[in-house]
Amino acid sequence: MLKGTHPLRVRYADTDKMGYLYYGHYAKLYEIGRAELLRTTGISYQECEDEFHVMMPVLSMECRYKLPAKYDHLLTIHTELRELPKRMLHFHHEIYNEEEQLLNTGEVKLFYVDMKNNKNISCPPFLLDKFKPFF
Amino acid sequence: MLKGTHPLRVRYADTDKMGYLYYGHYAKLYEIGRAELLRTTGISYQECEDEFHVMMPVLSMECRYKLPAKYDHLLTIHTELRELPKRMLHFHHEIYNEEEQLLNTGEVKLFYVDMKNNKNISCPPFLLDKFKPFF
Amino acid sequence: MLKGTHPLRVRYADTDKMGYLYYGHYAKLYEIGRAELLRTTGISYQECEDEFHVMMPVLSMECRYKLPAKYDHLLTIHTELRELPKRMLHFHHEIYNEEEQLLNTGEVKLFYVDMKNNKNISCPPFLLDKFKPFF
Amino acid sequence: MLKGTHPLRVRYADTDKMGYLYYGHYAKLYEIGRAELLRTTGISYQECEDEFHVMMPVLSMECRYKLPAKYDHLLTIHTELRELPKRMLHFHHEIYNEEEQLLNTGEVKLFYVDMKNNKNISCPPFLLDKFKPFF
Repeated sequence: MLKGTHPLRVRYADTDKMGYLYYGHYAKLYEIGRAELLRTTGISYQECEDEFHVMMPVLSMECRYKLPAKYDHLLTIHTELRELPKRMLHFHHEIYNEEEQLLNTGEVKLFYVDMKNNKNISCPPFLLDKFKPFF
Repeated sequence: MLKGTHPLRVRYADTDKMGYLYYGHYAKLYEIGRAELLRTTGISYQECEDEFHVMMPVLSMECRYKLPAKYDHLLTIHTELRELPKRMLHFHHEIYNEEEQLLNTGEVKLFYVDMKNNKNISCPPFLLDKFKPFF
Repeated sequence: MLKGTHPLRVRYADTDKMGYLYYGHYAKLYEIGRAELLRTTGISYQECEDEFHVMMPVLSMECRYKLPAKYDHLLTIHTELRELPKRMLHFHHEIYNEEEQLLNTGEVKLFYVDMKNNKNISCPPFLLDKFKPFF
Repeated sequence: MLKGTHPLRVRYADTDKMGYLYYGHYAKLYEIGRAELLRTTGISYQECEDEFHVMMPVLSMECRYKLPAKYDHLLTIHTELRELPKRMLHFHHEIYNEEEQLLNTGEVKLFYVDMKNNKNISCPPFLLDKFKPFF
């Protein structure tokens, strides 16, 4: 399994009239979680796109909102890849606050696209090699 | 059933490096869809909060991304409430582009909270009366 | 002079903990104002980029916040180009609420870039021809 | 003088179709800069609002865009308060990339509001005491 955590503080820009992190902003938290998890393998998503011309569009997202995240709270984004992402990447996320309360869970599935011809592909070798040691 | 549509143009602010509407912004499209659907019943979400002190936090969201939405495209947000929302509101959304291609589907569930004591409640009478004629 | 107006409703996503339109979101209102003003000349910003390969990055922005914009309020974005935009585009914006109170003023300056070589250029002929009748 | 720096990575959510940090998102960078600068004095903006009932709405913002910030770049937000903020807070910001190129400068002016009666006030004593040692 590949897993990791990343901190993120809730900013005024992220809050809404209820005083909570707006429900649509969790998608960015998941993005941060998976980008930072990918970085720990030794390759960044930026390199995937700009050097290897592979992009990973999102196929689906599911979010469960359990408790609100509030302004200035320092959240922790937990991210897991539970299976070797051969044809698809399936990330599991959990968002915690400083009191270690679980605020939110999310699942995001992405696929691989070869940017040179815009076609779906399986996990390219340069990336599979980075993932394999963790599974 | 209660259903309706609302137009929305994709702005530069909404696009990402891929040139598409960022996957996290669909949550705002769903918000717009349900706010405009609610307005057609004769009451606005703003009135629910500010006059009746009832808010509707989001419980869950599911999104399926089928085709990308692109800069400056004029989207149509289709929104449906298929059942009388007694204990919960369950909205179904479909996002279409100008060529009537289905780009995205989403489901959002919300519940009712009495803002005076922050407790979960069932659909309050002032609102149930607005919904009933449609079911 | 080239001038126009465009309506925009404040959404929950746009509000912050104060219950107001977040101060950073006015930049998007200005973007909407100038895109819609440009469209009235018969050419869209999307066409400038995708067909004529001219983009217009922002050089500077100035905002004055006079009164807050609130959730669900229907704003009107007033946009003016006071001079023929030969070397630069200088937009003046005023944001009003439904009571015709002036909430915000903004000025945004943009320049022209030839996307094929990434160089600054003067207003290209296809666009200057669209602007000239208004000045 | 009170000054400080804070790092921030550009996320996909922040980019636009040009592949750059969207021009409207700098306002959030300035917000992060001033919140983190305030925190170094021993008080947070969250405490100002929630414990002392003082909020600081924005009066004006000016931005100069010099070079684009790109996806995944690790920016540094430099923030300065050059004068004791008695009646108003005037923040100066500079945004640098990893190559220490200056990408953007911004100035934001905020004022003090007593949230109990919604009136403008001068810098309240609890806050002035925190600022004074730096000037």
